Amino acid sequence: MNLVPLEDPADPRLADYRDLRDVQLRKSLETEHGMFLAEGEKVIRRAVSAGFAPRSFLMAPRWVDGLADVLSATDAPCYVLPEELASEVAGFHVHRGALASLNRTPLPPVAEVLAGARSVLVLEDLVDHTNVGAVFRSGAALGFDAVLLAPRCADPLYRRSIKVAMGAVFTLPWTRLPDWADALPSLSALGFTTVALTLADDATPIEDAVAGLDRVALVLGSEGHGLSGRWEQSADRRAIIPMREGIDSLNVAAASAVACYVTARR
Amino acid sequence: MNLVPLEDPADPRLADYRDLRDVQLRKSLETEHGMFLAEGEKVIRRAVSAGFAPRSFLMAPRWVDGLADVLSATDAPCYVLPEELASEVAGFHVHRGALASLNRTPLPPVAEVLAGARSVLVLEDLVDHTNVGAVFRSGAALGFDAVLLAPRCADPLYRRSIKVAMGAVFTLPWTRLPDWADALPSLSALGFTTVALTLADDATPIEDAVAGLDRVALVLGSEGHGLSGRWEQSADRRAIIPMREGIDSLNVAAASAVACYVTARR
Repeated sequence: MNLVPLEDPADPRLADYRDLRDVQLRKSLETEHGMFLAEGEKVIRRAVSAGFAPRSFLMAPRWVDGLADVLSATDAPCYVLPEELASEVAGFHVHRGALASLNRTPLPPVAEVLAGARSVLVLEDLVDHTNVGAVFRSGAALGFDAVLLAPRCADPLYRRSIKVAMGAVFTLPWTRLPDWADALPSLSALGFTTVALTLADDATPIEDAVAGLDRVALVLGSEGHGLSGRWEQSADRRAIIPMREGIDSLNVAAASAVACYVTARR
Repeated sequence: MNLVPLEDPADPRLADYRDLRDVQLRKSLETEHGMFLAEGEKVIRRAVSAGFAPRSFLMAPRWVDGLADVLSATDAPCYVLPEELASEVAGFHVHRGALASLNRTPLPPVAEVLAGARSVLVLEDLVDHTNVGAVFRSGAALGFDAVLLAPRCADPLYRRSIKVAMGAVFTLPWTRLPDWADALPSLSALGFTTVALTLADDATPIEDAVAGLDRVALVLGSEGHGLSGRWEQSADRRAIIPMREGIDSLNVAAASAVACYVTARR
């Protein structure tokens, strides 16, 4: 174990852990440095078992024992700080105790993610990390094989997404689509029927839309405005979850859970 | 319109609007005074149309016009404060502009809420207001008729629940169950088949569990531990949402959406 006791919250070696509540700062910092943050023993274990290499750890002394096996299996330094100083670095009370900074791995090509997949989620421009995490969790639980993200969809490896996904962002294969405009026709060309969840007038009930299909790509839009016109129109089919008269929407986490359930049982 | 310009954020007339982010304080304050808070023009309109009587309003000058019709239809004072002072009272930036304090109405008897209902949600001890709101929203959208809450379930009229529910807490009839221990047998006696969502070994897939039933009460447990043993065992049936091998849970909002969808289409 490479334990490194620190006493100065301003130590430059703690740069990965600064101001975790500042979403804008974290977005650019994490992308720039090709890293992401895992919070809590369970999530750290899942990230490491999924093959992500730790850059470093940050924790109060009382959490070291519980992660001893993980810490022993790497050369990455474990910065040990008194609890109140750890919270000072992170900018909030680190109640799950341990933090780890891990290297992102290169995103796999779309073809690799789709190999062998029969049910795939395609997320356009979700902005809320909670929703991205929730969609991954539901997709994994309900039998989906992979997730593809539009270039502007929120990051699945953001701390909040990871937490809500309960590890599914590590286990479910995913990648970014290189191109937004022709993303859905490209998927159709690869043998997937793209089914867009929408409130469009010509949408058919989801159960009918997916019935009997082999390879399906279920396409979800953003929280506010739903799918772009381009994606809505370039999908092979438009589907709706039948709702009570006068009510026109479910939140995206609920809608995706229902759509995944129905699609997985087609 | 009873417009009352104020300039002192410490004015005692603003007591209903203090420290909106302090969950513990708000819980006792709102219960004690029999009030709840609505945030934003849309939510305020929905609360007032649903018959809740406003006690007062609090907003910056630029929001008055948009709510003029609502303000004109009541004697309740509208406290008008500069935006930064309004935020000082509330303890956060009031970005949706307008706040209203409304009187709670007496909770209806269970029999009244159940009259004519065919599909009912029963929530045991959900602690998260976001989840309570999400369950109401999904239940309303997917065709449920009413919601019953165990004595300790989180408050549907808490600001956060209301926001997430998108108004469903105003439109879907709901009440508290007077008694926890025999709640489910009492519902069975009223002609409902109680179906508990659980991971119990003897649980059957939800589609089979609800097939062909007339009146159904779908029973959901808390986020962390699920249902109490008492409720799990006293339900008429135990049901599970079939999940991928090795994954044992969906979050309660996703699970309830799927369960409502399946149950509504039984």
